[in-house]
Amino acid sequence: MTTHLEREIYEQPETLRRLLEEERGHVASLAGMIREFDPAFVLIAARGTSDNAARYGQYALGIECGMPVALAAPSIHTLYEAQPNMKRALVIGISQSGRSEDVRQVMADARAQGALTISITNEPDSPIAQAAANHVWLRCGEERAVAATKTYTAQLMAVAMLVSALAGRSDMADGLVAVPGHMQTTLDLAGDIVDWVERYRYAEQYAVLGRGYHYCTAFEVGLKIKEMNGVTCEQYSEADFRHGPIAMVQQGFPVIVVAPSGKPFPLMSDLLDKLQARGAERIVITDRPDVPAEKRVMLPDAMPEWLAPICAVAPGQIFAMRLAETKGLPIDQPVGLTKVTVTR
Amino acid sequence: MTTHLEREIYEQPETLRRLLEEERGHVASLAGMIREFDPAFVLIAARGTSDNAARYGQYALGIECGMPVALAAPSIHTLYEAQPNMKRALVIGISQSGRSEDVRQVMADARAQGALTISITNEPDSPIAQAAANHVWLRCGEERAVAATKTYTAQLMAVAMLVSALAGRSDMADGLVAVPGHMQTTLDLAGDIVDWVERYRYAEQYAVLGRGYHYCTAFEVGLKIKEMNGVTCEQYSEADFRHGPIAMVQQGFPVIVVAPSGKPFPLMSDLLDKLQARGAERIVITDRPDVPAEKRVMLPDAMPEWLAPICAVAPGQIFAMRLAETKGLPIDQPVGLTKVTVTR
Repeated sequence: MTTHLEREIYEQPETLRRLLEEERGHVASLAGMIREFDPAFVLIAARGTSDNAARYGQYALGIECGMPVALAAPSIHTLYEAQPNMKRALVIGISQSGRSEDVRQVMADARAQGALTISITNEPDSPIAQAAANHVWLRCGEERAVAATKTYTAQLMAVAMLVSALAGRSDMADGLVAVPGHMQTTLDLAGDIVDWVERYRYAEQYAVLGRGYHYCTAFEVGLKIKEMNGVTCEQYSEADFRHGPIAMVQQGFPVIVVAPSGKPFPLMSDLLDKLQARGAERIVITDRPDVPAEKRVMLPDAMPEWLAPICAVAPGQIFAMRLAETKGLPIDQPVGLTKVTVTR
Repeated sequence: MTTHLEREIYEQPETLRRLLEEERGHVASLAGMIREFDPAFVLIAARGTSDNAARYGQYALGIECGMPVALAAPSIHTLYEAQPNMKRALVIGISQSGRSEDVRQVMADARAQGALTISITNEPDSPIAQAAANHVWLRCGEERAVAATKTYTAQLMAVAMLVSALAGRSDMADGLVAVPGHMQTTLDLAGDIVDWVERYRYAEQYAVLGRGYHYCTAFEVGLKIKEMNGVTCEQYSEADFRHGPIAMVQQGFPVIVVAPSGKPFPLMSDLLDKLQARGAERIVITDRPDVPAEKRVMLPDAMPEWLAPICAVAPGQIFAMRLAETKGLPIDQPVGLTKVTVTR
């Protein structure tokens, strides 16, 4: 029996292609508005999975567009009823359902102050879509599994489209067009996870590591594993992990390492050696066949670094799903989770 | 035998008093410079423990001064050699040793761009202190234990002094003066942890929860427990935890909940009930004697909410230390840790 989750994971090449085709013109016009507004900084408000898309935005807008990005602390607006000054900001709200009350509050405050506001949601009639002056519709179709997958990669794609339009570089636009194909290849390459995932059936603790562009990937892979499997899973930047938390790694401790080609690769490679010395069980997501690992999931080798996070999360989605399947856990409605989190 | 760590934890009333007395005038003059510069936003660069002080800054500057705060992603500056536009920013670097290379790079980039730069360190001759145009010296004396304690609370105090000076409110200045006394009371009240910590000797997984002003407290308590005890410990905002990760809580799972009086208290109280329903072992840091808990560590009841994080971390520091003692682990030099992390 196919689950909603499995269908939604395998729909991702199609949802990415649709978003790119149908929203490209709109996003280009938003980029023009942003250039005209000339924001002093960007503020992104999001919760949960969408907050991992916000992390991607921090790196992509910072590195490719030179824009400093703050991730909002929505409690400041809701619990404390305070309003940081957002007059000079581009304020972006990211939410699958468009119904997180605290993200809506940040968007409403920002718009009232005179900020340039853009929401990115899968629900054009939602409160967050209505609260912002501008909306990017993810066009994913309904996401029925509780664990978000296709809407997460679409959120990253929407951010990447904005980055490409702001940078105005044709090589970046070409890169975007290739993403749906790379996603298909990624899903194909991750197909054999089902053959070996049983090895981890009784693991109760994991760590997931990334750095730079894949900091968000590490956080999102960890979140999927936790949501679906009721295990603990800590997510770290390589920089923070090696100077402390690495102490918890003992013989056989499973560590998922996101280590594709790119600027952080030499550091990740060195960390893999250190993990080997401690006897860690290394599950590595990479495009490099020579990377030492107990289990390796390959990525396509032609992805530009700034776009790789859109695809690199997919092996983690599949690992989390197959692990839950082998444990006999419910797939579409994990215990204790709800799809819409109306956080106050 | 007394350890460096124990001495440094119990020195905190004195280090806070010294910092307040000797840097108050200097911080007031920095506040004047900031008002004149009129920054569009604040960017704080930090790693590890100091990053938790940065989280405090995000809430305190946002709520009390209306200043939006971004936490820097230093990899953008180092690995990717990119520079987000910081011309209109107040850029603050926080580091105990003043020697994190990536934080130094952010400060140097910011100063070269024309940002207003302030470093907060315990080492006035350090590279980060030199890289910034202005420096707040924590005056803690040497910190010899690897796990940072007195320098963390001094970092929070330095941020609080800046917030009070920027807000220009006499009640806030009065509140600061009372903090060293509250810290002494907090340390006294936490003295009995040693009598019951043995109960957790064989626990291998923990969660620590906070919200709002105590988001930083939850992260720092979790970090101390991990650094010293080689266990896994996940830190969460109450908002994120209840909508997913709570699924991992089973009978007897130890959850440390930071729940003093204040705006998030009703939400934390509700979460404590939900945790009870799941059979969690609740260790609660609070000033409310009526809060349900398996173990309760009391805080002084007269602290203003915005200053409580300076003291509320101390029971967590003591818990982490006593737990390591009862396990027979090294206290001043935990396995696998180094004091100075010269992150690239």
